[in-house]
Formats: sequence, C-alpha cells, structure tokens
Amino acid sequence: MPYIKVNTGNKEVGFDAPEGISLLDALKNEGFIPETPCNGKGICGKCRVLVHNSVPYTPEEKKHLTPSEINKGVHLSCMVKLSDDLEVSLVTGDRNASIVTDANISGTNGRPVVRKTFVSLPHPSISDQRADDIRLISSFSENTSYIINQNGGFQSFFLSFLRELPGILRDKDYNITVVEISGKITGVESGNTVSENFGVAVDIGTTTLAAYLYDLNAKEQKAVASRLNPQRKYGADVISRIEYSSKSLRNQAEMSLLIRNALNDLIQQLVNQAGIQHADIYAVTLAGNTTMLHLLLELPSANIASAPFIPVLLSGLELKPCDLNLNINHNGRLFVLPSVSAYIGADTTAAVLSTEMHKKADISLLIDIGTNGEIVIGNSSFLCACSTAAGPAFEGANISCGIGSVTGAISAVSVTDNGGFEITTIGGQKPVGLCGSGLIDAAACMLKTGVMDETGRILDEDEWPDNSKIFSDRLITVNNQKAFLLVPARSTGHGEDIYISQKDIRELQNAKAAIAAGINILIDETRSDTADIKNVYLSGGFGSFINIDSAITIGLLPKEFSDRTRPVGNAAGAGAICALLSEENLSEICEIAKKIKYLELSARLDFTSQYTENMFFGTDL
Amino acid sequence: MPYIKVNTGNKEVGFDAPEGISLLDALKNEGFIPETPCNGKGICGKCRVLVHNSVPYTPEEKKHLTPSEINKGVHLSCMVKLSDDLEVSLVTGDRNASIVTDANISGTNGRPVVRKTFVSLPHPSISDQRADDIRLISSFSENTSYIINQNGGFQSFFLSFLRELPGILRDKDYNITVVEISGKITGVESGNTVSENFGVAVDIGTTTLAAYLYDLNAKEQKAVASRLNPQRKYGADVISRIEYSSKSLRNQAEMSLLIRNALNDLIQQLVNQAGIQHADIYAVTLAGNTTMLHLLLELPSANIASAPFIPVLLSGLELKPCDLNLNINHNGRLFVLPSVSAYIGADTTAAVLSTEMHKKADISLLIDIGTNGEIVIGNSSFLCACSTAAGPAFEGANISCGIGSVTGAISAVSVTDNGGFEITTIGGQKPVGLCGSGLIDAAACMLKTGVMDETGRILDEDEWPDNSKIFSDRLITVNNQKAFLLVPARSTGHGEDIYISQKDIRELQNAKAAIAAGINILIDETRSDTADIKNVYLSGGFGSFINIDSAITIGLLPKEFSDRTRPVGNAAGAGAICALLSEENLSEICEIAKKIKYLELSARLDFTSQYTENMFFGTDL
Repeated sequence: MPYIKVNTGNKEVGFDAPEGISLLDALKNEGFIPETPCNGKGICGKCRVLVHNSVPYTPEEKKHLTPSEINKGVHLSCMVKLSDDLEVSLVTGDRNASIVTDANISGTNGRPVVRKTFVSLPHPSISDQRADDIRLISSFSENTSYIINQNGGFQSFFLSFLRELPGILRDKDYNITVVEISGKITGVESGNTVSENFGVAVDIGTTTLAAYLYDLNAKEQKAVASRLNPQRKYGADVISRIEYSSKSLRNQAEMSLLIRNALNDLIQQLVNQAGIQHADIYAVTLAGNTTMLHLLLELPSANIASAPFIPVLLSGLELKPCDLNLNINHNGRLFVLPSVSAYIGADTTAAVLSTEMHKKADISLLIDIGTNGEIVIGNSSFLCACSTAAGPAFEGANISCGIGSVTGAISAVSVTDNGGFEITTIGGQKPVGLCGSGLIDAAACMLKTGVMDETGRILDEDEWPDNSKIFSDRLITVNNQKAFLLVPARSTGHGEDIYISQKDIRELQNAKAAIAAGINILIDETRSDTADIKNVYLSGGFGSFINIDSAITIGLLPKEFSDRTRPVGNAAGAGAICALLSEENLSEICEIAKKIKYLELSARLDFTSQYTENMFFGTDL
Repeated sequence: MPYIKVNTGNKEVGFDAPEGISLLDALKNEGFIPETPCNGKGICGKCRVLVHNSVPYTPEEKKHLTPSEINKGVHLSCMVKLSDDLEVSLVTGDRNASIVTDANISGTNGRPVVRKTFVSLPHPSISDQRADDIRLISSFSENTSYIINQNGGFQSFFLSFLRELPGILRDKDYNITVVEISGKITGVESGNTVSENFGVAVDIGTTTLAAYLYDLNAKEQKAVASRLNPQRKYGADVISRIEYSSKSLRNQAEMSLLIRNALNDLIQQLVNQAGIQHADIYAVTLAGNTTMLHLLLELPSANIASAPFIPVLLSGLELKPCDLNLNINHNGRLFVLPSVSAYIGADTTAAVLSTEMHKKADISLLIDIGTNGEIVIGNSSFLCACSTAAGPAFEGANISCGIGSVTGAISAVSVTDNGGFEITTIGGQKPVGLCGSGLIDAAACMLKTGVMDETGRILDEDEWPDNSKIFSDRLITVNNQKAFLLVPARSTGHGEDIYISQKDIRELQNAKAAIAAGINILIDETRSDTADIKNVYLSGGFGSFINIDSAITIGLLPKEFSDRTRPVGNAAGAGAICALLSEENLSEICEIAKKIKYLELSARLDFTSQYTENMFFGTDL
C-alpha cells in the first residue's frame, strides 16, 4: 500500500492509501480538501499539488499546467494514480474565505417566531384538578388572545416536553415561562426566562455557510459566524455534489452529515460569542438553494440535475431539531424556507423577502450572481424569476488565475493615470488570483484601454491605441494563447504571474451573456421596460464586490441601471433573519414562493438569440 | 449466591439470585410472574409458591395460609428471604384470561381516520416542472375538496416520507395511492393499494390489553387479539404500578417498554391472523385509563396517585409510530385518546363515544366496574362523571378465593330447586376460584337463602330459615372466621375448598357501597331521577358476566334499573374502534372529554353518608 506524506504548509501528515486510486481521492479520503470544481474529471485543473517524487506526466495533464509548474513537479492530483510512496505539498490550501455576511434587515414587524411569556399558574387543589397540560393550555389562552393549535382536538406535543412538564411546573411554584413557536406551545421553562429568547438564521450557500444569532425580543443581532461549505471537497458546483450524493445512500447521508456538523459548529461559535446556552435557541430558519436544502435534508437530488429538473421538495418544511440533530433546545423548531424550482431556491425567496420588492409598487430587479445567476423581477402585483447557468467563471473557476473571494484575491482593478494597473485585494494581501469582481474590472480596463475589442478578442499590439502602448510588456503568451498580464510573478503572493488569457475572456463572455440574456427575457416576459425598473439589488458576495460601472462597461448590466443599482449583501441570510424575526414574514415567504412565476430558459427559443446578442461586450464605453 | 430451581409445571429452570432479597423479587427478576395485587407487601396472599425445602414460617405469613397449605410447604414468596438454595414449584401460573373483546360498534359515519386515494399524476416535463411535493399536493387537492393542512404555509411532512417520495412516484409511472390521515397527506404508495387500508384500535386495561384490526374501507373487523397486561407483575392496581414506575426513570422506561412490546405482540398477532403487512396499518387509536396511558407514554405518573390527583396529560395526543416504536407503517399516526381526570380516563371517554349516550335526549348511565368504578351520567346536553375506589374485590383481589376472569373462575352461582348451589365457570372447567360476578351471585344467594342478613353478617345456623338448613354443612370456619363453602375441595380444580368468608362479605360491601354511592351522587348532582335514566350500560369484563338481578339484590344497582340495564362488552375498545372508523368520532371524543364534568368524590361531604347508607344489602329481596 503506497504511503503518502503530505506537507500542508503547517504540518506534515502521513497515511497509507489504496493502490490504484487517484492521489486526489486519497487526499480527499484523509480530509485534505483541494478545490475541485470538476470533481476529479481533469477539467478544472484546480487540484494541483507539488509532488516531490518523479512522476511522469500524461499529455492530458500537461494541458492544464504551465512549463514552470511542470518544471517544479506540480501535478493535477486527480491525474496521478497511486502505485508507489509519494511525498506531496499542498499548493492551494484553504485560504481564509472572505464571506459576505452583511445582512440588510428591514420589515420585521409583528411577533418573532419564538415568543416567551411568563405566567404564574394557579396551584392545583382538590377544587382545581386540571392536569398539567390543561392547566398550561387554559391558563395561557386566558392570558392571551392566542389560539392554541389543535388538530381536531389532538395536541402534537413532543413526549420529551410532556415528560419534563410536571417537574418544570412545580420547580418554581408554578411560575413558568411558556414558549410558543408560530402559535403553538412547544416548551415550558421554570421561572422567568423571558429575556433569554434566541433564534438562528442560516444561509447554506454552495460555497459558504453563514449563521446569524438574534435576540428575538430585541430583534438584535448578537453574533455572526461563517465558514466554507465542507461539501466543497466533492466539487465546487451543485451538479458535482448531486452526482456524488446520488451514487449511494451512504453518500447521500455523508453529504447531509457534512452540513449538519458544520451547522452545529456554527451554532457552537454563535453560542460562545454571545455567551448563551444552546437551549436558549428555540428556532432556526434555513435558507439555501434547492440543491443545498436537498443535501441538508438527505433527500434524493438526482432529478434536480437533469431535465426536466424536478426537486423532491419545494414547500417550506417545519422540522424538529432532532430531525437534523441540530444542537438547539430539543423542544424548538426548524423552518426550512420554501423554494420555487430546481434552480430558484429558498435563498432567492429569502432574498426577495429581505428586499421587500414584493411589497413595492415600483418594479425591482434582484440579481444573485454565482455559478448560477438567479434573477427575479417584480413588484407587489407580480414576481417572475429565471436562473441562468452562468458557469463558475464569476467564482474563479475555469479562469486561469481564478480564485474565490478569499484573502489575496484581486477584487478590483483600475487604470491609473501614470499608465499602471491598480489592483485591490481582499484583506490587502499580496495577490494570489482573480475573483469575479476583479475579472470584470480587468476586462473593463482591457476594453477601455483598447487592448481588447468589443468581440472580446485580445488585440495584437499593433492594433492597440497609441496611448496604450505603455502596456506592451503585459501582452504575453501562455499555452499558445494570448494573455494580458495583470501582476507579474515578482509581485504576487505565490510567485507566479496573474494574467487573463483569451480563453478566460471567452468564459467571461459566456457568463455575462447568460446573465444579460436572463435579465432581458424577464423584462420582455413581464412586459416591463428597463426604464421602469427603479431598484436593482445585487445580492451575494460577488454583488458586494462588483464595480457597477465595470459591470455596465462589459454589458453585464444595462447602462440605465447605473444610478439605481446597489449591493444588498447576503440577502438570502437577511431573508432568513427576517423570517425569524417576524411570524408575518415566515408566512409571507411561503406566499412569495407560490407567487414567483418561474421561467425555464432552456425551454425558450428566445434564450439562444438573447444569449448570442449579449455575447459581445457593450459599445457604450 | 442462593441457587433457585423453579418448576413451572411445564419445565424446570434454575438461576442464581442475590442473597437477602425476597423470593418474590427473585422470581419477578427472572420473569416468573406470580399475581401480586399488593406488590409484595404481604397483604394479598397471592404470591403463593410451593417450596420443597424446609423454610420456617413467620406468624404474619401464616395468617394468609391454610393449615393444609402450610402442611404442603406453600409459602408467600414475598415473605421468604433468600439465604440458601431453594427448589420451588409455581402453584398459580398464569391461567388463560377470558378477556372480553366484544365491542358494540355504532355510529361510524363519515370518513375513516385513514383514507387512501388512487391518483394518476401528470408526468413532469419541461413545461410542467412542479416538484414531487407540489405535484402531489396540487394534483391531489384538485381531485378532492380536501384542504391540505399547512402551518402558515409550512408542511410537516416526515423526512422519511420525502426521501421515499421520488422513487414511489416514478415506480409505477406516477400511478400512486395517497394516504391521508385526518386531512393531512402522510404517505404515498406505488400503484393502486387503496384496498389495503387497515387500522388498529387498542384498549389498554390495567389487567388486560385488547387490540382490534379493522379494514378501514369496509369498516369491518378483521382480527382481534388480547393478552394480560404484562405490567401486572408490578401489582394488580394502578397505584402499585405508579409506585413502581415513579421509583426511577429506569422503572418508568421499563413500564412503558412492557406495554409497547405487548402492543407490538398484539399487532403481530393481528397481522398474522388477517394475512396483511405491518405497513398496511397507518393508524392506531389508543384507549386506556389515565394511568395506563401515562405509563405507556413514559410520563411521570406520581402525581396521579396522591391528592389532588394531577395527571400530566389529559388532552388527546397525536404521535408518530416511532415515538412509541410501534410496528406499523412508519408514515402512520397514533392517536392517544383524551381523558377527563386522573381517574376518568380515555377508556371512559371512549366508552361514552361507543354508547352514543352523549347524542341521546334520554339520560343514560354508564358504569365500568373494576378496581375503580367509573360512572358517567348524561345525555346530549350534559355529561357528569365520578370514579369510586371500589377496590379490587370485583377483580378477585382481597377475596379469599378470589380470582380474575380466567378459565375456571366461578362466574355465576344460583340456588337449585333440589337444595344445591349451581355454579358456572368460565370455560366450563373445574372451579379454581371466584371472580367478581360469581361473588355477587354468591352473596345474592346467601341473602336469598337467609344464611346472611342485610347487614352482611353470616348468620349462625340456628338463625337460618328452616328451608335453608340443608346448607348446614356449608357453614365452615376458616382462620377463625365464619365462611360459607361454595365448592368443597373434592370438586375443585386445585383440590382446595372454595368459600366466602365473613371478611370477603365485608370487602364486597365496601365495594358495592362505593359504586352505589357514586351512582346516587351523580343522580343528585345532575338533578336527575332514577326513573329518568332510560339506559344503563355496564361495560368491561365484569359488566359482561354480571347477573343484573343479583346486582340489584345486593343493592349494587337500584331496582328500577332491572329492565334497562345491558352489558356493552369492552366499551372502551368499542370507542377506540369508533374513533378509528370515523374522523367525526375522532374529533367528537375530544369534545366529549371537554364536556364531561368530573366530580371528585373525596372532596364531597355527601360521599361518606352515601357510602354508609349503601353499606348494607338491599331490603327488597
């Protein structure tokens, strides 16, 4: 059995691995998680490791590697079959993700989902023999106008609740705090604990998880925690994860467990930060795209991945904490927020809720650009959505020097007066790659400086405007392709050039064409006009970093949007928070999900023409 | 460690037992279950075993044993402390219980609790992308007038249901059978399984368990199963069991497990008898007295046992099969029927439902005589109930030759023309004891023949009427008490005399006085008149065997009732069946529980006077 020694940068670890499997699989099995958007298919070139032994290269593998990488001994681990002992160094460890957790909260009127009320119950006596349950229900419903939910008279109390009930009633002489969740009594605590009333809102993104702890009485945020989605080790995109999860029930369970454990870690962080107890948390709202929610709930997801794209569940779902083994009060409830279709998930319905676009008379447009671009248009009388397969270009995948929104990622690029390119990186560190907003900025700069034309062709130097000749040393050739050098190796964090190749530009064109086509089709379908759209909300991490002018320059957004576009941070997380803070919102999000009309772009003849029309960059520079 | 060898009659078994514990505890630990109404307190004398070694008798123990028993080596096992090896024979094995499972079913209009509907769903396509859940819900609600229950838009599907859903929909090309339970979609089956729709009604009695399998479409009984309550090994009465269960959480769990396992055994029997699958059963209704339901649900029951007698739960409760680990379809539901007070349980509310007394204009009286006598008076405008601690005399406990309604129990006694006593036994076997109805008959005969007076004193022979002198050889002395011999040892199944002692008569007087007082107080309280009561229902095993004339003779029932009293079999079981067969009934039983006004007799000044007044036997012979 080959023995693999791994240098992670921080430590060295060794393990035995089965002969014949790929080095990538061996590293995955041991929890080293190279970013693998293509899930080991040799396509993305992202699973690079430095192999210290001499291992021959296949012609396929060489395509994805630069000569300098090959010189050093860098390999695609998915292409290396294990036969002998190996010593490897990880070249792309997990960087600290810069996760956008800003959540703009508005419209949280009314009761929070969890409500605590202090009650002194009358003592039992021979003339008041009401049982514990009846005493609780009747005294409580006398004190409030609340209707106790009953299914034809049958209660749905948890047995665990009933088992605790007599002890809790008598512990502090019938002074108790009653816990109601969406109108049902679900818990009782001894004494007055009204002030300890917390809930958690969660956004399960394909890339990142964000969790927000709220004081439900004050409607105040008490802590935020985020982390990368641990399922990434099975691929960056939802399709790779569906494929992995669908291979066996064991995989399906594993994918679910990865998320559940991560959520429990986040809850632990929140609890630690705020100095509260797990048992003080009675409700969790869960937003996420349709696939992420299926994987969380351990539901079969295979039908999401192929036409006609049919999920198992779109309805909102109320669960018990034990259904997902989440560490909150065992008498609490989980609310999985409702989705619209396979590719318009609860993250989008939550985002709509948080923007309140469904309440406004003016038409709004909500755009969440990730691997898929989810776009919603509408106002108080209509809502219409589509999802475009933009591909992972904006998340750094399939781009030569692409990288997610991690520290060191170039997030902004501009041309300086003295003929240089100014770059900004996340965290201010030396650059190590280009994230989506940086890519758009860079492309916009290339257009503005005339080193690239509207068709997206990187021009030969002799075609450049004269005042751009100062950039001539930036025109390089990589893998027989023209490329534009952004940062030379000497100035980067990893000692390699950061550049944009002709192929990268084509990827960007595809991605932006898909989004722009989606926007245009929604406008057409709803007989709206670009000028009618008064608010354009850009949600998600990418939307927070994006330079609106650059987005308009490359034709991702129509130029009319320049004065009305604003980032809304993690709108999915914000929607999950809104649902947690207001029962009205919790009901409303189900209405939103029902109201959104979904357009399946793959079924539309106009999509191809719109896509082609939008492939070129804009002419309004 | 003493080694105990046990001869059960069928086999010999040996085991080691800790020194110092009682022989009874040792036998209980190993699953030999002597009937112990007093739960090892040396009171009931029911834990007799034959000890083949010489073990000294304590004076206390001797009180409960006849000289012939002492000669043979019979001991009360609760009085024998283990110090040396012992060899014992069980003298009172479990006899076959004659369990009354006759259930008079009426009023089962409307839908059964479980409803199956065959539906052919439209196939998904790119122009019909409804998710599996939405396709199911929407197609189904188009086909019926049913309202899909939603909690503010959030579904409460089980995850197990959702996990199976996509496979089941596609298994037979979207031909499915939808399972609804009280208006909620809870399951889906592949193809057309509408004809396999079964439910189980259960009555958990203190002594016996009865389970009924019904075809819910045809509303036809398919199988019945019954068995003794395995908790009996911890005492015949509810108080002993509450004491045992309250000692530790472990005991509480053990008591619950005993019943759950027994219920699963009964379900297995039903499934075998009817030739169906466990998964064909989607609903179980559970009746039982308040204590039995607490023990089933593993709820703390201690407060039921002492004033002011406060149960944890009286409401009806809807549970999942996994909550109690019952082996029915995992997407099914359990309905624990509602109770009224600590001593008016769901068995009584179910009995009221089955008699339909709550719907009649005429006033009815429902009497269930067991250890407690539960009595309900009422009609369509009022219902009022009380519970009297009749004691276990009617169930054979605390009566010298008393025994439950098992085979060989004397269930009827009458005086023949030729001066003999004619006895009838359950199962027609040689008599081994006297059950409740036999005791009442015997007492009535003793009154009629003048060998006992109205005060309950067994008269000296010289006080007897002349024509009763033929019974003179029946007047015997046992333990220095007068007793009346019913069957001499030579004619009994166990070779011992069966008699009624003066003490037995006193026990009977106490029991009947309690019931009669309860009846009178209910009549007074509701300002009714004995003559107004048009129906008297006697429920339970005892009610089925009882001779109405004898009951009137001894003053248990007023003489006005002679022409309007009828046994209604297992009315609790019948009520559980009624609730299973009709959704209306399932809702109605919750209304019945709320409507019944409970009178706490221990709080009433008139109870003592009524009790004393009714202590003597009637004068209207």
